[in-house]
Amino acid sequence: MAYRLWYWPSIQGRGEFVRLALEAAGIAYEDCARDQGVAAMMTDLEGRAANGRGPYAPPYLALDGHAIAQVANILQFLGQQHDMVPSNLADRYWLNQLQLTIADLVAEVHNVHHPVGMMDYYDDQKAEAARAAAQFRDERLPKYLDHFEDAARAGPSDWLIDHRWTYGDTSLFQLVEGLRYMFPRRMKTLEPDYPHLLRVHAAVHALPGIRAYLKSDRRLPFNEDGIFRHYPELDAD
Amino acid sequence: MAYRLWYWPSIQGRGEFVRLALEAAGIAYEDCARDQGVAAMMTDLEGRAANGRGPYAPPYLALDGHAIAQVANILQFLGQQHDMVPSNLADRYWLNQLQLTIADLVAEVHNVHHPVGMMDYYDDQKAEAARAAAQFRDERLPKYLDHFEDAARAGPSDWLIDHRWTYGDTSLFQLVEGLRYMFPRRMKTLEPDYPHLLRVHAAVHALPGIRAYLKSDRRLPFNEDGIFRHYPELDAD
Repeated sequence: MAYRLWYWPSIQGRGEFVRLALEAAGIAYEDCARDQGVAAMMTDLEGRAANGRGPYAPPYLALDGHAIAQVANILQFLGQQHDMVPSNLADRYWLNQLQLTIADLVAEVHNVHHPVGMMDYYDDQKAEAARAAAQFRDERLPKYLDHFEDAARAGPSDWLIDHRWTYGDTSLFQLVEGLRYMFPRRMKTLEPDYPHLLRVHAAVHALPGIRAYLKSDRRLPFNEDGIFRHYPELDAD
Repeated sequence: MAYRLWYWPSIQGRGEFVRLALEAAGIAYEDCARDQGVAAMMTDLEGRAANGRGPYAPPYLALDGHAIAQVANILQFLGQQHDMVPSNLADRYWLNQLQLTIADLVAEVHNVHHPVGMMDYYDDQKAEAARAAAQFRDERLPKYLDHFEDAARAGPSDWLIDHRWTYGDTSLFQLVEGLRYMFPRRMKTLEPDYPHLLRVHAAVHALPGIRAYLKSDRRLPFNEDGIFRHYPELDAD
């Protein structure tokens, strides 16, 4: 039976980290809100909150009787169910740790365009966003990329952790994709320093499931409602 | 043998979620940077980065040959090693999910006083912080507390998930403690709406290990270098 994934139907957002792992592994899933709409997702969410174990926010996987939310948690669940995690226990904690660090970076990326009013429009905080973006580009981004480059360099193969891909690889792929979309000038400057990270990106890009997904209409384009947003005024060399 | 925990020695910060679980469970640990200083922690971190599997940041547990970082990852490790997690698999994912949502709130709390320059001083972003704080107090904070109240109400006992405490309980305790310190006026207004969350807080407070810890000098006081900071100008009823 196909998994039921609920996430905002018009953006890649955090849900994309889950979609990519499912697509790479060839696991069947229904992207429910793309078929049924946002109102159906809200109704589903409210019902789950009433029983006390609802997700705080999408994305979540609806299973029989309960739901699993939080990207790193969903990926851990899928990994364990579908033999997509390393066999070694230390490697599994390392994979989870990397995914959580990716989540931290994703939260900082969102904060760049919404620094003072997460619920407000970007247009209402452009000056603040410009300041947040400068420090993000100059200090935070290279620090994170250094960390992921160290991790990729230490990988035992083309992959990050194992001799086959894990969701850590698909997540790093998405990070590079998103950062290139949001900061094309900055990434052009930085990328030569990160050959091993780009090696992982290329290996994921060549996975048959990912190649097919990227060509399909299931892969939504990046846009200015998601997490990675291209505002040229926030980019620089 | 005692665990070796590395974290900033002068703040509660994210490390406190780990300290509380260790203290509640009576697990021996060395708070290494409190004994050896920050320079020793930096040396330790740099050595681990060089081998490609270093933590992105403290806190981390140093084990033989590797380290485990990211609060939710450390707590999952400790839980599984020390029989501190529910036996039911769905409950374990729910516990991890709650911890990750707590981590999201903690990141938003930090963002309140550092909205545009994570590496800058609060004094350099007071106007921006005031704006971020207003939306946090009015919209984000009640939304998170509603979620945790739903979770606590659904608990099968005084505790959140199981018939005994888990690290979800100690983490919610710390959240209430921190929010009371940072937003005493706002929390005074909100707390009557969250009786089940306060029930969990009280139950954790009464654990023998926690009572002893809170009276000891191992419990650092809250201060304006940590995550939960009391700036009266950011609080309101």
